[in-house]
Amino acid sequence: LSKRILVITGNGKGKTTSAIGLIIRSLGHKKKVSLFKFFKSQPSGEDKILKNLGVKIFKFKKAFFFKPSKIPKDLKIECQRLWREVEKESENKNLVILDEINLALSANIIKKEVFKKFLNTTKSNIVCTGRNAPLWLQKIADTVSEIKEKKHIYIKGIKAQEGIEF
Amino acid sequence: LSKRILVITGNGKGKTTSAIGLIIRSLGHKKKVSLFKFFKSQPSGEDKILKNLGVKIFKFKKAFFFKPSKIPKDLKIECQRLWREVEKESENKNLVILDEINLALSANIIKKEVFKKFLNTTKSNIVCTGRNAPLWLQKIADTVSEIKEKKHIYIKGIKAQEGIEF
Repeated sequence: LSKRILVITGNGKGKTTSAIGLIIRSLGHKKKVSLFKFFKSQPSGEDKILKNLGVKIFKFKKAFFFKPSKIPKDLKIECQRLWREVEKESENKNLVILDEINLALSANIIKKEVFKKFLNTTKSNIVCTGRNAPLWLQKIADTVSEIKEKKHIYIKGIKAQEGIEF
Repeated sequence: LSKRILVITGNGKGKTTSAIGLIIRSLGHKKKVSLFKFFKSQPSGEDKILKNLGVKIFKFKKAFFFKPSKIPKDLKIECQRLWREVEKESENKNLVILDEINLALSANIIKKEVFKKFLNTTKSNIVCTGRNAPLWLQKIADTVSEIKEKKHIYIKGIKAQEGIEF
């Protein structure tokens, strides 16, 4: 069976949770999985459970909030560090989740040619999540799902709830 | 904290996996979860893992393929049976996933008034997945995510792969 490239993008809720669902589905078939979380450093509800199930998780050492127009240098450095982990640690995995990498690609922090080369050479199924998936990535991908936010509780001014939003 | 009603709809890949991701997130916060799978009877990769994590799973005793214009009577009966399980077993849960229930609602197998009453009285967070979520449900919901299929590998004629599609 050949590898797949899945892209989950759009402004709606459920991109990362959808990827987590894919992890669980793969684990159910005794597949090996790695999860790389770009731009995220804080623990979230699912991490401990995924670790206990044997998923290797790699993430940022600190969180960053940034505008695509002004990307801090230390964010770029941290992104490159995690990217090297991807290149090193994604081998021999059936499923590799690159959570929020679409942001790093659209902001050109990880270069198109570098990422294309990775997709060409990897033997793993790759899932790329995050808003603004670049069109060149959508063209390469086997599946592109766009999650649209039709309505969101934040709009009504209600706070995030443990276990639902994080 | 008050309960939430989340709707995940649309023709794209990732509705059920997104709900599974929410389950894992909730379990990470030590919440109690029930999963009800409408129209599905076959085992899927995630079931065993979810069960081992303490999730109670209820589903159809046999699978049905049907057109909304012609719904077999035994499907309706099976749907009502599972619905009674929902009413009975969803109490004292933090999160209740009603997988594919949108189909049952749009086909009017589970009546609007019955479901509205359930949503009014339950204390659980409710997630409804499936295509064609009725508009009345989208109006009640706190969050509505629509997953659009921009591109799908099936289109290219490649077969479903274990751990990704099921």
